[in-house]
Amino acid sequence: MNSYGDPAIRITLLPRDTNPQGTIFGGIILSYIDIAGAVEAHRRTGVERFVTVAMREVIFHEPVYVGDLVSFYAQTLRIGTTSITTRVVVEAERYGGTSERIKVTEAEVVYVAVDANRRKMRISREKLEGGEGGGVEVHETS
Amino acid sequence: MNSYGDPAIRITLLPRDTNPQGTIFGGIILSYIDIAGAVEAHRRTGVERFVTVAMREVIFHEPVYVGDLVSFYAQTLRIGTTSITTRVVVEAERYGGTSERIKVTEAEVVYVAVDANRRKMRISREKLEGGEGGGVEVHETS
Amino acid sequence: MNSYGDPAIRITLLPRDTNPQGTIFGGIILSYIDIAGAVEAHRRTGVERFVTVAMREVIFHEPVYVGDLVSFYAQTLRIGTTSITTRVVVEAERYGGTSERIKVTEAEVVYVAVDANRRKMRISREKLEGGEGGGVEVHETS
Amino acid sequence: MNSYGDPAIRITLLPRDTNPQGTIFGGIILSYIDIAGAVEAHRRTGVERFVTVAMREVIFHEPVYVGDLVSFYAQTLRIGTTSITTRVVVEAERYGGTSERIKVTEAEVVYVAVDANRRKMRISREKLEGGEGGGVEVHETS
Amino acid sequence: MNSYGDPAIRITLLPRDTNPQGTIFGGIILSYIDIAGAVEAHRRTGVERFVTVAMREVIFHEPVYVGDLVSFYAQTLRIGTTSITTRVVVEAERYGGTSERIKVTEAEVVYVAVDANRRKMRISREKLEGGEGGGVEVHETS
Amino acid sequence: MNSYGDPAIRITLLPRDTNPQGTIFGGIILSYIDIAGAVEAHRRTGVERFVTVAMREVIFHEPVYVGDLVSFYAQTLRIGTTSITTRVVVEAERYGGTSERIKVTEAEVVYVAVDANRRKMRISREKLEGGEGGGVEVHETS
Repeated sequence: MNSYGDPAIRITLLPRDTNPQGTIFGGIILSYIDIAGAVEAHRRTGVERFVTVAMREVIFHEPVYVGDLVSFYAQTLRIGTTSITTRVVVEAERYGGTSERIKVTEAEVVYVAVDANRRKMRISREKLEGGEGGGVEVHETS
Repeated sequence: MNSYGDPAIRITLLPRDTNPQGTIFGGIILSYIDIAGAVEAHRRTGVERFVTVAMREVIFHEPVYVGDLVSFYAQTLRIGTTSITTRVVVEAERYGGTSERIKVTEAEVVYVAVDANRRKMRISREKLEGGEGGGVEVHETS
Repeated sequence: MNSYGDPAIRITLLPRDTNPQGTIFGGIILSYIDIAGAVEAHRRTGVERFVTVAMREVIFHEPVYVGDLVSFYAQTLRIGTTSITTRVVVEAERYGGTSERIKVTEAEVVYVAVDANRRKMRISREKLEGGEGGGVEVHETS
Repeated sequence: MNSYGDPAIRITLLPRDTNPQGTIFGGIILSYIDIAGAVEAHRRTGVERFVTVAMREVIFHEPVYVGDLVSFYAQTLRIGTTSITTRVVVEAERYGGTSERIKVTEAEVVYVAVDANRRKMRISREKLEGGEGGGVEVHETS
Repeated sequence: MNSYGDPAIRITLLPRDTNPQGTIFGGIILSYIDIAGAVEAHRRTGVERFVTVAMREVIFHEPVYVGDLVSFYAQTLRIGTTSITTRVVVEAERYGGTSERIKVTEAEVVYVAVDANRRKMRISREKLEGGEGGGVEVHETS
Repeated sequence: MNSYGDPAIRITLLPRDTNPQGTIFGGIILSYIDIAGAVEAHRRTGVERFVTVAMREVIFHEPVYVGDLVSFYAQTLRIGTTSITTRVVVEAERYGGTSERIKVTEAEVVYVAVDANRRKMRISREKLEGGEGGGVEVHETS
């Protein structure tokens, strides 16, 4: 077990996801990180649409191999007036190996809430899961 | 929360996964069901390699739409001498919707344990998670 | 030659279609089975839109390898009021091998005829190719 | 029915195969033409490996749409000492339409027989299906 | 450096782009050739939409390998009343190799200018980059 | 023209690259950024293999749309003993629009030079293009 709870995304990676060196292509991992943070942002705020505005300090600790079962855990770090910052931790269970999980990548991803016309909109305080911010820092900037 | 515990696979589906009618292509769902059952089979038995030998009673209850967050929950139904039968239930959280989960698909998938040369091998009783079968039916046929 | 006539789908499979074990991923085969049955359902009934409601007794007899030329043959088994049941047999010609064909997978797939709004609709008896059911069982249930 | 016999390749095209204008991307059609000609070359000569050396006079007559069932028919035009020239005709059955087939694309594709090390090799006259060339022009150049 | 100037398309090719022989699938190269010629046609004429009507004398000189950096250079050969003929030359820098560039493929691609309803439209002489045809042959046929 | 010179990667994006909102999926852009920085790292140092260890301050300025021609320009910022830091700027030319280029994304990507066994190796000072560091900061800390 791990301390992050329910995964936002979990997937097995396939040969079509490899780079020329035969390991999983970093871009594939980044794609799922982007989705995982958005899943968390939606769950926490109830907002329907987000656009990704930044990724910070993406660290690739270990390679991911074909067949690994990869879990993307996401937490909310900060909720602003229109933006939300999430932290995504990626863990791999090696294919054909023990059930040990290895942290392979981590990143912070920032999203902005938008309406159907892609205009910024305020994140409603009332709908935040777990009450006023659900234990995370809630502030009024950006 | 749901009664199936930790998902074997969880993923958001994208426009590239659609059929000509604009909903998610059934073949994509079946691909993840196949992986999800194998993830469960590995977790339960510790066996490294399985080949899929059959799928039974795949039922498509509801369509899956672009953007849905789709979770694949897998349980072990039966463990034989060399085979394992899993049940996979697929739930969707609609994109931009409430957090309600809808059961969209379910299936039984049967795997056979194989060695590195794809020859059938016995599933060791000692390694079964949760003791002798972990609460599931364990028998000596197939 | 084989006894199934004109293939519904025929395709060569590529490295991007492999699983971690290097053979063709079962989900890819299932995707084409789903399409092949729908091609047959359309040919037999003239109905424009079908949704897949079930797959029964999918049996994977042999692995499929990269480069195999794979043919999907489909037959109609039963036509109900709104549904059609097809049987799909999958044969592979091995890459770089003789022209021998091997049965690798088979399945039954059930479709329901729908209109443009995904509502069930009756399958017209008049349009059935080959007359009243074209030699297949035609009944009034489901 | 059509006059080209058994298709070398037949496939339904999906939203993931479209260009920015929403029709099927020409590169996808060309990919299947390349495979279809190689399937024919293998059938006719029994040679295991070919590399594509040229495509001539590829003509795109009509667009292909999402959901079309597309058949690729291939004939052998000429067999040289180490090369084979095929003609591929592509027909579409429109999705949701009548069963009428429309010729959408055609091309000539030239392959050279190679051994496992990608060196040119002679095409054996003995193995030609249908006897000495099977009714096609067989000559000793290239 | 090379004599073709700014590439229309440049990309690194990945394992998912391979054929059963492990080299890059010709269809992938053809897809990018199709795009590259259209990029050139748009740049030269300012026309928004083109459809590909023909490819002539596609020659595959050398295989392309996984990891190669592949550049597609496009020139305009002829501009007709509604059509434009481009020449695309494809060069590869081998992965892990020296910076030497090798010509791997070349082709002529013909496009027709169309409006939003896919009807042929005249290519305006006024908008041709570099003045009346920009140094290329401009004529009034097709 | 722009101030970044020759693009590391340039590509047209297709419907298969979209997210549920119909714009280009951020993960696709990140994948090409990863490749573009590696192309630059190879060009600058002559080193054959790099692994991506970090991405910093990825900023998404504007959405990318289907059909946009997207260019990835990469510069070297710093060369350490075993690592290289690149900056990638992504520009889009809108499909069917004027030739104006818009900066859509930017990022810093850090790579470490590795040998064939994925062990860190020193970046040779002798092979740096443009002499000792080619105008960029060269220092001795990883």
